[in-house]
Amino acid sequence: MTELRGPVRIVGTGLIGTSIGLALARLGVVVEVVDADPDNALMAERIGAGTRLVQLEPQLVVVAVPPDHVGAVITEQLEQTDAVVTDAASVKGKPLADAKALTAASGRTADLARYVGSHPMAGSERNGPLAGRADLFEGATWAITPHETSDPDATELVRRLAEACGARTVELSVPDHDLAVARVSHLPQLMSSLAAGTLVDAPAEHLELSGQGVRDVTRIAAGDPGLWTQIVAANSPALSGLLEQIRDELDRLLIALSKEETDDEVTAVLRRGVSGAVRVPGKHGTPHIELVTVLVTIPDRPGQLARLFADAAASGANVEDLRIDHSPGRPVGEVELAVKPASVDQLVEVLTERGWVVHR
Amino acid sequence: MTELRGPVRIVGTGLIGTSIGLALARLGVVVEVVDADPDNALMAERIGAGTRLVQLEPQLVVVAVPPDHVGAVITEQLEQTDAVVTDAASVKGKPLADAKALTAASGRTADLARYVGSHPMAGSERNGPLAGRADLFEGATWAITPHETSDPDATELVRRLAEACGARTVELSVPDHDLAVARVSHLPQLMSSLAAGTLVDAPAEHLELSGQGVRDVTRIAAGDPGLWTQIVAANSPALSGLLEQIRDELDRLLIALSKEETDDEVTAVLRRGVSGAVRVPGKHGTPHIELVTVLVTIPDRPGQLARLFADAAASGANVEDLRIDHSPGRPVGEVELAVKPASVDQLVEVLTERGWVVHR
Repeated sequence: MTELRGPVRIVGTGLIGTSIGLALARLGVVVEVVDADPDNALMAERIGAGTRLVQLEPQLVVVAVPPDHVGAVITEQLEQTDAVVTDAASVKGKPLADAKALTAASGRTADLARYVGSHPMAGSERNGPLAGRADLFEGATWAITPHETSDPDATELVRRLAEACGARTVELSVPDHDLAVARVSHLPQLMSSLAAGTLVDAPAEHLELSGQGVRDVTRIAAGDPGLWTQIVAANSPALSGLLEQIRDELDRLLIALSKEETDDEVTAVLRRGVSGAVRVPGKHGTPHIELVTVLVTIPDRPGQLARLFADAAASGANVEDLRIDHSPGRPVGEVELAVKPASVDQLVEVLTERGWVVHR
Repeated sequence: MTELRGPVRIVGTGLIGTSIGLALARLGVVVEVVDADPDNALMAERIGAGTRLVQLEPQLVVVAVPPDHVGAVITEQLEQTDAVVTDAASVKGKPLADAKALTAASGRTADLARYVGSHPMAGSERNGPLAGRADLFEGATWAITPHETSDPDATELVRRLAEACGARTVELSVPDHDLAVARVSHLPQLMSSLAAGTLVDAPAEHLELSGQGVRDVTRIAAGDPGLWTQIVAANSPALSGLLEQIRDELDRLLIALSKEETDDEVTAVLRRGVSGAVRVPGKHGTPHIELVTVLVTIPDRPGQLARLFADAAASGANVEDLRIDHSPGRPVGEVELAVKPASVDQLVEVLTERGWVVHR
């Protein structure tokens, strides 16, 4: 049985690398941190993610550098060590292709048996070592993507790494992984950016009509363009197929709209959207459809949320999800609480008794 | 000065019509409710939104029927009464065009002076009279859209209606309104539906990699296809221009991706997205960029949110927005609290003192 004993070398002390270091150091694993920027490595060391110089040969190397450099650094680490090497990049095909080309060029293709890709699905709008957290991956999904020549023991060691960080692993082939993230991450990002892009030239009075829908759809469009350009470029084969599908649907929509025979085509797009939306897992992987929501009107001043949640807790209901409606200019807010169907009657009764205005 | 005295006739007792009735009845205005479905009118009457038969001539008629029927019902009401007539449809060009054609056909074009369109920007996933609420429009935006021959007194009366319901009015021309809602509502809806549509055929293991981004982008795709088909069809001229813009950007993206010269084109789309996203007003119309967020790890059991918000309130911070991260399978949850920058230090200090794991 393959055990994660360490030392583990982490190359790249951004949010992901530093968080892995913190999680492993917490378990007593010896961690070495390396970064092209010595200030970053020093900061990661200071907050306890590892030390900058370890004398022992690493058992495992984790490459957590920006997407464009991943393939080169994987190859370098395979050459410099006898360790299993993994990476944390969000696209798996390109690093593997790069590493294949580079190891072939130096006649060291056999090294690739020690490489197994992985993708911890956690992150934050925060960047850099100081954003690192030992619990970043607690309960998160961590994809493991062995390729054709990956050694099964190497795959097992990478799985141990993910589990040591508290993550739940999913094993996928490299092409399958890249198609999956194109679907659930990269395409939504581009659709959000395209939708938000149409607002750039809008008069301010048009934006006054914004509601929660446009806020939700455009939220991730505020993400870092530099990072996302690298991700999109790295995953262009998988993304292109999906974008072509969208483009074809848009063409059909535009033709239908121009003929004023919109209904069938528009309804088909909207129905397909409903079928897709309900497949997106909610909290704990359950479809959100299983939760019931109630709306509570709430005065916009400190302490009201505390009072509301104390009253909700008193009903015995566990609030599974919530949303504050923040329409511009509303003097009162509205909170949408989602609870399991079995809790809803009691919740509404208790909140109403305690003076809340509740709508089911 | 034009006063709203009543009686007000409401045609269509769905969520919007019933809520207007409840808001007016609360102020002592006499309200008559009319619905093609007598059960709906009866329910609206039972919950206090008005009475089904009023002997007096109405001062104002509010048409709150499904989008496809609005123009015809406006015309009918202009012919049957001497009242000011408004409607609550979410697209304004088509009802006006329909009413123009119908009044011209019967030689009663002059009646149109008594018609002023309006659009209360509130709603819910709930439908029907029982979902009605007197406070539905409290603080919401209500667009008023007079056309070229609208009588200024009629416009003023419709403004009084919106104010009586507690809304904030924005006056826009009919074409301007329709372009605005195409931008901030109808296009985001279609983009959400198109993105969600790509998930229909995805293997279940692909969906396991879903995070908060795809949940946000696809949330509104779950909306009612029947209603949205009518809205999209009614606003096709304004929507077509925006959809063409998106299609052209998609074409450029696809060419760039196929040439592996992605960076400039992709970065341009992503940057434009950032510029658009930050223009979407947040709570109280302030850009969300002015708020600072902190992350708090929270055990997933009843009462924890109550304890968290009590502690947050004790710090004096007003939580302006919040979000629960519900990644599948996480045994602990994560709550993102957004507060004004001036409150954040005190909030973090108090929460940390009280044992919370807080990340800035």
